[in-house]
Amino acid sequence: MLFVTRRAVFSAAHRLYNPELTDEENEAIFDKCNSYNGHGHNYVLEVVVAGEVNPKTGYVIDLKKLKKIIRENVIKKVDHKHLNLDVDFLKGIIPSAENIAIGIWNQLIDKIDEGKLFSVKLYETENNYVEYRGDK
Amino acid sequence: MLFVTRRAVFSAAHRLYNPELTDEENEAIFDKCNSYNGHGHNYVLEVVVAGEVNPKTGYVIDLKKLKKIIRENVIKKVDHKHLNLDVDFLKGIIPSAENIAIGIWNQLIDKIDEGKLFSVKLYETENNYVEYRGDK
Amino acid sequence: MLFVTRRAVFSAAHRLYNPELTDEENEAIFDKCNSYNGHGHNYVLEVVVAGEVNPKTGYVIDLKKLKKIIRENVIKKVDHKHLNLDVDFLKGIIPSAENIAIGIWNQLIDKIDEGKLFSVKLYETENNYVEYRGDK
Amino acid sequence: MLFVTRRAVFSAAHRLYNPELTDEENEAIFDKCNSYNGHGHNYVLEVVVAGEVNPKTGYVIDLKKLKKIIRENVIKKVDHKHLNLDVDFLKGIIPSAENIAIGIWNQLIDKIDEGKLFSVKLYETENNYVEYRGDK
Amino acid sequence: MLFVTRRAVFSAAHRLYNPELTDEENEAIFDKCNSYNGHGHNYVLEVVVAGEVNPKTGYVIDLKKLKKIIRENVIKKVDHKHLNLDVDFLKGIIPSAENIAIGIWNQLIDKIDEGKLFSVKLYETENNYVEYRGDK
Amino acid sequence: MLFVTRRAVFSAAHRLYNPELTDEENEAIFDKCNSYNGHGHNYVLEVVVAGEVNPKTGYVIDLKKLKKIIRENVIKKVDHKHLNLDVDFLKGIIPSAENIAIGIWNQLIDKIDEGKLFSVKLYETENNYVEYRGDK
Repeated sequence: MLFVTRRAVFSAAHRLYNPELTDEENEAIFDKCNSYNGHGHNYVLEVVVAGEVNPKTGYVIDLKKLKKIIRENVIKKVDHKHLNLDVDFLKGIIPSAENIAIGIWNQLIDKIDEGKLFSVKLYETENNYVEYRGDK
Repeated sequence: MLFVTRRAVFSAAHRLYNPELTDEENEAIFDKCNSYNGHGHNYVLEVVVAGEVNPKTGYVIDLKKLKKIIRENVIKKVDHKHLNLDVDFLKGIIPSAENIAIGIWNQLIDKIDEGKLFSVKLYETENNYVEYRGDK
Repeated sequence: MLFVTRRAVFSAAHRLYNPELTDEENEAIFDKCNSYNGHGHNYVLEVVVAGEVNPKTGYVIDLKKLKKIIRENVIKKVDHKHLNLDVDFLKGIIPSAENIAIGIWNQLIDKIDEGKLFSVKLYETENNYVEYRGDK
Repeated sequence: MLFVTRRAVFSAAHRLYNPELTDEENEAIFDKCNSYNGHGHNYVLEVVVAGEVNPKTGYVIDLKKLKKIIRENVIKKVDHKHLNLDVDFLKGIIPSAENIAIGIWNQLIDKIDEGKLFSVKLYETENNYVEYRGDK
Repeated sequence: MLFVTRRAVFSAAHRLYNPELTDEENEAIFDKCNSYNGHGHNYVLEVVVAGEVNPKTGYVIDLKKLKKIIRENVIKKVDHKHLNLDVDFLKGIIPSAENIAIGIWNQLIDKIDEGKLFSVKLYETENNYVEYRGDK
Repeated sequence: MLFVTRRAVFSAAHRLYNPELTDEENEAIFDKCNSYNGHGHNYVLEVVVAGEVNPKTGYVIDLKKLKKIIRENVIKKVDHKHLNLDVDFLKGIIPSAENIAIGIWNQLIDKIDEGKLFSVKLYETENNYVEYRGDK
């Protein structure tokens, strides 16, 4: 079994906020991340595909193709955007790194047609990252 | 001559927009960076102080002190903030990396009392950074 | 299943030395790492917690809380210390990266109360790192 | 269970090309990577060994020994070489990152005598890497 | 004075070889870098432009424009190429990092029309880089 | 003018302590860095040599030679050592990053015979580094 990883970067704003909670509760839970006008990050995304090597190409999946799939289905929708306001697949979701990673997984799961989506890693800062491997 | 550098990181949102221009001009100049709801970055700041070594301490400037100066005068004001809306020292200024670096220089120039502020470097993404060395 | 990682850094001295072996044996096994007065590293620690997303917060575990748990139970005890001499949880143990990682795991295992401690990674240099996932 | 990783770097040229395909097919599949005179990379290799801690040393495997095994069996054969032309263990193989990782695994699998080879990771660029964990 | 830096990456093969020297002399001087079939690197290029901030844009130079200038005049000519054989502006030149940096400077010097080209930095490996600031 | 940089890494222990001060003064000035049994770092050293390109080689200075000069005159003396106790050229000096950089400069200044030593940069942690350019 081989795992192939493609990295991409996007810059986005977000605000952590649960509309079902009071302002005080939001402040208590999300602290600085609840700042009213939002803040932002350079998110680093790693998409891992697992599979066998195709003997014709030496590839599990052509990384040029994977790059394009990631660009069309994720980067174009989140790069230089506000994750709470501008992104259809995150509407109504608290845009924590965890929820963004799950959202990205769902964007990609049906688009990978060589190998199989194995993992989505998302670095929010140099000190924080999350990994989602699907819900099976 | 010795140069001592302290690095700090902050996460902020911004939007590039010149209110004296039309929407079309802003769009043409700032493109993705003009996205209406803003986007964001993990900014990496490097503050360089030049000076002589103090023989009592072996330091040009005590980096614990420099860290505190940077935190009080810069990081507290910009971290987890929206640079267009929340930051007094950037009010009315297009928050390009260049202008943020100049703003940070102005916040720090009178606070460094050992050695002399030499340079402010600001990384906006892994591909873009600016350096300001004052206007002399 | 989601994996959430928090990174922290500490600077410490150590000496690799097994008191049950002769000086010659220690020298033969540990070589440079056996240098009598010790040497040191900037250790990079990554703590991985696995769990489900809490729908109220979007978090597996609040990273501010995880940061505090790591600081109180690990960083305060090892940062700017000599690992052979100053650290209670490493007393009598050869402070190899492997053993430090196991020691850190044991410091944290009972303190994580959201999600479950999954892995402790410890980078000793840019070329060497270890990962411990518990003994089950 | 502990995982110990040793990192090494090598600089090599290669060309992606399948001799059983026409020039047009090669061009269509491999694009820039099919450039006639080859191109190159600084490959970053990570070799992961899994095992128990030896109580005498605190090591899963002595990293000085692992470093030497990697140097003798891999680095000496690929560093500053052309992977299509100069490397015996890649003869007749399309030198994609996937196939190089498998080739390196096969070079190492019988040489690791403390712990067990667990994984070979190979970074081709800062955006692409593969991992091979054997074929069991 | 402000300095604005744009980073770009390219992957290329090269061979260090002076045709005016004997094989023995080439071997003695260039050692591994003289390997007959060439080797390669992921080169990291940083282009530094110095200038004043344009008050209309907040930019010294629009980095989207600088990115395009670098892509058209440098990256397209060297990425996935063999520097000895495929690159017009390096014909007849020993492609050491020094000479590549000078060649890139000459490609860019007349194309930068906002601010002034200040420096070209070229990282050949993580341990080696050069900087050229023109010949004045 | 060209600047050529070679990077090297060493792991060492140190303690910041001025024997002419009282324990209380040392504690007040050096804080954590004054910890009695010492602590340590993975120091990253960058040595910058300035000069003209030698047309015979394409080099300012052969980096293999520079690497050897750095290894013989610096790395062998400081790697896996205690900087207060084991290093002749730091005897009687407070081993702050500043003073170590000056010490390294003095070790190298007479050994560089192609080009001219321009700068010694020393990274103590990912957040702190110093640069020394000699005392002219």
